[in-house]
Amino acid sequence: MVYENTSNTLGLVSIVGAGPGAIDLITLRGRDALREAQVVIHDALANTDLLHFCPAGVEVHDVGKRASSHRATQEQIHALMIENARAGKRVVRLKGGDPSVFARLSEETAALEAAGVPFEIVPGVTAACATAATLGVSLTSRDLAPGAVFVTGHECASRAAANPVDWTALARLNMTLCVYMGVRELPAIATKLLAAGMSPDTALTVVSNASRPNESARNGLLSDATAFAAEDIGQPAMIFIGAVVAKEFASAGISEVGTRILTRP
Amino acid sequence: MVYENTSNTLGLVSIVGAGPGAIDLITLRGRDALREAQVVIHDALANTDLLHFCPAGVEVHDVGKRASSHRATQEQIHALMIENARAGKRVVRLKGGDPSVFARLSEETAALEAAGVPFEIVPGVTAACATAATLGVSLTSRDLAPGAVFVTGHECASRAAANPVDWTALARLNMTLCVYMGVRELPAIATKLLAAGMSPDTALTVVSNASRPNESARNGLLSDATAFAAEDIGQPAMIFIGAVVAKEFASAGISEVGTRILTRP
Repeated sequence: MVYENTSNTLGLVSIVGAGPGAIDLITLRGRDALREAQVVIHDALANTDLLHFCPAGVEVHDVGKRASSHRATQEQIHALMIENARAGKRVVRLKGGDPSVFARLSEETAALEAAGVPFEIVPGVTAACATAATLGVSLTSRDLAPGAVFVTGHECASRAAANPVDWTALARLNMTLCVYMGVRELPAIATKLLAAGMSPDTALTVVSNASRPNESARNGLLSDATAFAAEDIGQPAMIFIGAVVAKEFASAGISEVGTRILTRP
Repeated sequence: MVYENTSNTLGLVSIVGAGPGAIDLITLRGRDALREAQVVIHDALANTDLLHFCPAGVEVHDVGKRASSHRATQEQIHALMIENARAGKRVVRLKGGDPSVFARLSEETAALEAAGVPFEIVPGVTAACATAATLGVSLTSRDLAPGAVFVTGHECASRAAANPVDWTALARLNMTLCVYMGVRELPAIATKLLAAGMSPDTALTVVSNASRPNESARNGLLSDATAFAAEDIGQPAMIFIGAVVAKEFASAGISEVGTRILTRP
């Protein structure tokens, strides 16, 4: 649905989930938004090959944020969306994965609402679902996991998180933990989960670049992850912790830490 | 990726996420699989308008399961996939939402692997992400929710779940709870969360038919949900419980239980 579409003189901001990386994992609606776009504002996780769907002459802004060097501030991104919409343009704000999962969506919609700019949200395939497809596992299972948790690992590094992750409560859940942005903090996360009583034999897998040609998986156990070296892992990466992952180990014939390059047919 | 593609005489089973309902919320890869399909086996949640992407003469099997009347057993579905793949056919197993989220994926891939049938998994937009897009809310938020939990409400009704949901641990998490298949059990779920100490003022919304023309939302508080009447709610429905929903209340100007029909532009 489109919000606040009260003026015909205003453009429209489509906040589009680009999906996990492979260009054919965007939705038809997301592709259609790109086909109509006059301005595209994309982050680092969106595959720029998707820009081939845009008409000639499209204006492209890369506002991708890396962990250490902020390319554009959140305020600059808001201003870029608002100014272009006020100029009557069709703006696509292209985000990796799904816009509602760890994508600063609420900050951006609040800015658009405050400015009276109409917007729509086009959902996408989030990284956890794409990673499950790559591994051939289900995030949920009648026998093994009555649910899945999407949690940020990045927050661990932040000294004063307003609302910290309760890893102790997470350790109690018999659910698949899907940790976004957690590779650097994996040893700290594993230590917390073990301290909270999670079994050291819990299966764990780290998948880099799911759905992209260079996708790879590293499998192990929760106890191995306390000595995990982030440098060896390609980014972006998704961490799964839980019993559903054990199936993947069995298929791959891997029972200890190791890296396996997934191959496409 | 394609698994077990060891024989050229075998067909291929593409397990495809149809997305939440709107036909333009399938991925390009999912649509392409339908374009190549000779046999489609779909469940109740997949929008049958998607079958228009299939070539003429496609063989369609509706194996949709309703809560009370099982149309086809899981074993019959497995046999249908395996027999058609062994006959060299391109089979699409079309599932609502994403195949890795509450879709019996592991049962079906285990059957295909045991039969030596090659398969691929095409991820889709899961209902929680589509519902967030409809409401204009983010499932995660730096200030309000460092994660989101996808949990089944259906399990509550099952007397002997192998792995029951720990609602007490969920009540401790400061995350967005996204309850799939939970409308009938909502009073029981709310009672458990309240008993575990979750605030009765926690915001709650129930969204029916997200992304479809008849989508609607009902907003309230956790304390209201103990008296919730499932009959009034269209299916399929998604329940969100948590602070991120309060933003939706504010936008809609609704502070107590009420039904709002979302409108498309």
